[in-house]
Amino acid sequence: MSKVWDMAGYWFSLHHLLQEISEPDSEPNNMKKIAIFTSGGDSPGMNACVRAAVRAAVYYNIEIYGIRRGYTGMIKGDIVMLDSKAVSNTVQRGGTILKSARSEEFRTPEGRKKAYEQLTALGIEGLIAIGGNGTFTGSDIFYNEYGIPTVGAPGTIDNDLYGTDYTIGFDTAVNTALDAIDKIRDTADSHDRIFFIEVMGRDSGYIAIQSGIGGGAELVMVPETNSSIEEVIETLKGGWNRLKTSSIIVVAEGEDEGGAIAVSNRVKKHVPYADIRVTTLGHIQRGGSPSAYDRILSSRLGVAAVEGLMQGRKNVMAGIINNEVVYTPFKETITLKKPIHPDLIRLVNILSV
Amino acid sequence: MSKVWDMAGYWFSLHHLLQEISEPDSEPNNMKKIAIFTSGGDSPGMNACVRAAVRAAVYYNIEIYGIRRGYTGMIKGDIVMLDSKAVSNTVQRGGTILKSARSEEFRTPEGRKKAYEQLTALGIEGLIAIGGNGTFTGSDIFYNEYGIPTVGAPGTIDNDLYGTDYTIGFDTAVNTALDAIDKIRDTADSHDRIFFIEVMGRDSGYIAIQSGIGGGAELVMVPETNSSIEEVIETLKGGWNRLKTSSIIVVAEGEDEGGAIAVSNRVKKHVPYADIRVTTLGHIQRGGSPSAYDRILSSRLGVAAVEGLMQGRKNVMAGIINNEVVYTPFKETITLKKPIHPDLIRLVNILSV
Amino acid sequence: MSKVWDMAGYWFSLHHLLQEISEPDSEPNNMKKIAIFTSGGDSPGMNACVRAAVRAAVYYNIEIYGIRRGYTGMIKGDIVMLDSKAVSNTVQRGGTILKSARSEEFRTPEGRKKAYEQLTALGIEGLIAIGGNGTFTGSDIFYNEYGIPTVGAPGTIDNDLYGTDYTIGFDTAVNTALDAIDKIRDTADSHDRIFFIEVMGRDSGYIAIQSGIGGGAELVMVPETNSSIEEVIETLKGGWNRLKTSSIIVVAEGEDEGGAIAVSNRVKKHVPYADIRVTTLGHIQRGGSPSAYDRILSSRLGVAAVEGLMQGRKNVMAGIINNEVVYTPFKETITLKKPIHPDLIRLVNILSV
Amino acid sequence: MSKVWDMAGYWFSLHHLLQEISEPDSEPNNMKKIAIFTSGGDSPGMNACVRAAVRAAVYYNIEIYGIRRGYTGMIKGDIVMLDSKAVSNTVQRGGTILKSARSEEFRTPEGRKKAYEQLTALGIEGLIAIGGNGTFTGSDIFYNEYGIPTVGAPGTIDNDLYGTDYTIGFDTAVNTALDAIDKIRDTADSHDRIFFIEVMGRDSGYIAIQSGIGGGAELVMVPETNSSIEEVIETLKGGWNRLKTSSIIVVAEGEDEGGAIAVSNRVKKHVPYADIRVTTLGHIQRGGSPSAYDRILSSRLGVAAVEGLMQGRKNVMAGIINNEVVYTPFKETITLKKPIHPDLIRLVNILSV
Repeated sequence: MSKVWDMAGYWFSLHHLLQEISEPDSEPNNMKKIAIFTSGGDSPGMNACVRAAVRAAVYYNIEIYGIRRGYTGMIKGDIVMLDSKAVSNTVQRGGTILKSARSEEFRTPEGRKKAYEQLTALGIEGLIAIGGNGTFTGSDIFYNEYGIPTVGAPGTIDNDLYGTDYTIGFDTAVNTALDAIDKIRDTADSHDRIFFIEVMGRDSGYIAIQSGIGGGAELVMVPETNSSIEEVIETLKGGWNRLKTSSIIVVAEGEDEGGAIAVSNRVKKHVPYADIRVTTLGHIQRGGSPSAYDRILSSRLGVAAVEGLMQGRKNVMAGIINNEVVYTPFKETITLKKPIHPDLIRLVNILSV
Repeated sequence: MSKVWDMAGYWFSLHHLLQEISEPDSEPNNMKKIAIFTSGGDSPGMNACVRAAVRAAVYYNIEIYGIRRGYTGMIKGDIVMLDSKAVSNTVQRGGTILKSARSEEFRTPEGRKKAYEQLTALGIEGLIAIGGNGTFTGSDIFYNEYGIPTVGAPGTIDNDLYGTDYTIGFDTAVNTALDAIDKIRDTADSHDRIFFIEVMGRDSGYIAIQSGIGGGAELVMVPETNSSIEEVIETLKGGWNRLKTSSIIVVAEGEDEGGAIAVSNRVKKHVPYADIRVTTLGHIQRGGSPSAYDRILSSRLGVAAVEGLMQGRKNVMAGIINNEVVYTPFKETITLKKPIHPDLIRLVNILSV
Repeated sequence: MSKVWDMAGYWFSLHHLLQEISEPDSEPNNMKKIAIFTSGGDSPGMNACVRAAVRAAVYYNIEIYGIRRGYTGMIKGDIVMLDSKAVSNTVQRGGTILKSARSEEFRTPEGRKKAYEQLTALGIEGLIAIGGNGTFTGSDIFYNEYGIPTVGAPGTIDNDLYGTDYTIGFDTAVNTALDAIDKIRDTADSHDRIFFIEVMGRDSGYIAIQSGIGGGAELVMVPETNSSIEEVIETLKGGWNRLKTSSIIVVAEGEDEGGAIAVSNRVKKHVPYADIRVTTLGHIQRGGSPSAYDRILSSRLGVAAVEGLMQGRKNVMAGIINNEVVYTPFKETITLKKPIHPDLIRLVNILSV
Repeated sequence: MSKVWDMAGYWFSLHHLLQEISEPDSEPNNMKKIAIFTSGGDSPGMNACVRAAVRAAVYYNIEIYGIRRGYTGMIKGDIVMLDSKAVSNTVQRGGTILKSARSEEFRTPEGRKKAYEQLTALGIEGLIAIGGNGTFTGSDIFYNEYGIPTVGAPGTIDNDLYGTDYTIGFDTAVNTALDAIDKIRDTADSHDRIFFIEVMGRDSGYIAIQSGIGGGAELVMVPETNSSIEEVIETLKGGWNRLKTSSIIVVAEGEDEGGAIAVSNRVKKHVPYADIRVTTLGHIQRGGSPSAYDRILSSRLGVAAVEGLMQGRKNVMAGIINNEVVYTPFKETITLKKPIHPDLIRLVNILSV
């Protein structure tokens, strides 16, 4: 049996196990009013997720409210009732119609008390949070204090959340990065240049590895591996010897050796004959109309979040693993690290031959 | 334990089983020369797959040849040696640089004899075929007659091949269809119209169901379910009552009730007050630069095809199931039917509330 | 002096003349309330034009109302006040937020009387109509009966309006058609096929000629020239002799020889060895986010429409000729025909060498 | 007569005049061999221009050669014969298949002597240069020394060349910038942020003004106007008072007050309550498949360049003004400055009301 297959077995048993763990204390309830909000950095697909949750609630005869600007709006009571029509024509929109914001106040007991009072005034019994680990940490604390359960959906382009194969917005972000890399390669080829391209991913190299493979990069530098400046220099010199005239090197934002500018500066000294340029893709990666993959993922998770609350689940994140909906406790999503599939790292080496 | 989870178990054991079956007669060999070709309808990602196979061959010190126009070129000896440079700058290209064609001659013993002679003249010991079931059927017969093994990669936008979650080109085709649906919705909304949009998929509703969900369609008609004209009429009348002014209905090419034109004609009689339009997306769905998903899938499968031949596999298709490479015998890919995930069908109903 | 330059002189004097004609009866007035509507087929950029008109009105302290569904809403009094915020975030949207509809009732004296009463009830003194010749004809009649002047903006993807170099939505439609042709060429090349592609343009070959040149078509069939089936057959046979294996022929919807299906059927008989396919691009050409060109054109025309009303202009269409705003009487836009620039027709022949 | 119309007259007479000036010494010749090259920064449409020139040469029975890497290849004799097939399937490609490079050697008499020897060895009588003023300056000197005439085509995304309304690549670059701005606005709106976006244009604000208008920016800072930091601060504070929660400010690379980072840093101090972000679009603006506008412009100019040489023109740039081909002496393109149309600057103010 091959190693890759064993790994599938590993994934299978692991999530099977988590599933078991989250089962005991969940039993169907009879929620009548829930609320949804987006929190943390926006990502393409958030609106598709909100839309799906709203329509699932309507489908199951549950009243659903939208909280604007995450915990900030929860504290202020910036909460509106939503219906099917309120979310029509939003599946294709980037950003979040519910807006997002950071809330320092929710970190304080006073802030959470106000939030609780706002929710109870409206009779809200459960919450759906679309965001990342910061958001889920807040939900966990809030549940322990006030008993209002949350089911989360993974909304971040970085794909660094344990408990789901892909996060909402990741596929779109990779496609956006790829589109940019394709454009830059036109110039790299025309001028025989070497380009260092920095993509997003503070703690994770998912965007970098996927856009690097898809974009035909010679090298990808990600936090998960120990890429060294020496390796970059060696690769570039090797390409030079093989008369390769242009190269693209994708660098993850959170790379240990520093971002694209820092890396390129160090490399320049060792490959003085090369025409080296640097570009940082930046915020374009967060926006745009969600890809097909993201719209379907988001739609499934929006429905799964509502159904999770209905099943009595609490403080779990709905995710899709191996094409199935799985609920993972916030405790796990916050503490466990999702590794990059070793096949992808192997692929970069083979394809840049 | 939920039903969806059981289904995952089903998938797992099934493929586990197939894996076992294909193991016995495969043992590492020492191939030195292989050839690759594309066959059947072109799909975005075929070039990325060829590129990956070529570079994997170079990586493993195997000589690799490209056969132009599938079996036609195999018979004619239209075969060229490929190296790393020959496939550079192709990862982003739609279509196939090796071209594709149908070959009536390969269906005859004489044709296959000529093909065998061409291959042996060059010393080619194994083949990589990127195509669909028609292609694989040919490979199977060819192996039985002449003993040259083939590893296949699933190249079709229809995603109707058993043995892989996604086929090469499917994700791109869905995104292309979705982009078209987004554009058409602009007009549908502006004019309060009902649009029937026909997407590709002769035997399978994969493109229809995914582009329908992603495009916010009210209804999706696919061969896999028994969609009836009555249901369409009822849905449209229901929408009318809820003051929904525009609707999009996605129809798969192979729908039992007929294509979009046939369906819309029958519906028009029952909803005379509606402004109904029909559009057939057609061939745009086959082309274009492959999406990130397709480039990575294609790259993995190109490498997996070479490694499959090296491991002594024969007459199997390399696919990705649950994010892992799996080799499925052609016999299975040809005879077994891949179902649409029930969650997706359920989703259409919930989201059109 | 070359012939092309003389033609520029022709254009120049012609519009100079029209300008003169439209001057006499226009003198600055002091309008305080105006209304805007979209009518006829939707086109990308209509929202950008509405937005610009609204903001120009705000800028000049004029109250501006939006009439929904064109003349239909004018008769029903479906009219809302607009402000700067009402149109924010619409510049990039396809379709029309004011919606569009055909109105049989406005063709009757009774219908127009109702419309007049609705407008006077609100004190509306001038109208901005974004649409085509059908719309402008209605405006002209309405002015003669009730004295409410209209300034028009050319909203149609067909670019068949005299009095402007480009109409709102044309550039986007050409880019959409081109994107589709690029995708189809992937397949044409991969399979050595000949594709007949039908693009929109009932009376005009503008979309066909521009997307044909941009898409590298071998031949473009437009109503403005006498393309004959014989020419198509000859071109295809010629290409066959030069070992050209794939070809794209763009056919305008309104071609005298019939649409793409009719033409291809007749051609097939004469080139039996060719693999011929047909595709009709259809409604995707109307939608989508407007291109840069269309957003700027629309914005300029929205402002020009408001300023035109302020200057006392009536029953003229604002257009851009040679990069300058020009107002052309509806009488001219309706009766005069805009020719395709002869350079473009010449270009198709040279480029398909 | 309005002021804008007078300006059209100004443009008309000016170019009319230039036309006259360039006429005297041009008389039809009988060139048999010409060569084409791309030089300076690459821009989308360069390939479409090369393709058109090659096919025009074939059409007129002129032999045409491609020089790789501009003046560098001219000196080295890196020159290949081109035919119709060599440029097929390139109309949609970004970058330049002839590659581009800077040549220090061509600035020396020795370098130019070598170039002349390479050209005469092949019998080349005329040159087509796709590039900017740096390229044209070289051509002018080369002609004075060796008598080989050049007709240029304006290849630069910056649109800063006098003698043409649009340069090759400009429309594509604006659309790329606009697409990025649309994406960033998703995030700006979701988080109530202010974004400073830097676009290309070292000496010219064309990309900034067009992408700013098209992207719905509150403010555009270009070298051509005296935008002051004070104005930015005032605008942002004004928006704050009107409860505008997000803003986009487009800054041209060559802005006198510094780039986007410098400007934003100075602004931050005065609007401390705002959440301000900065992004530099960078090299993505140079690449990508050319837009419809750029493909047609490039095609016309490629043909015009060949015809210009045939007409005996020398050291002139082919451009399109008011939709007609015009040849402007390099002396003029190099020394005269093309102003931004005042309507566009006015538009920014009106639209950000």
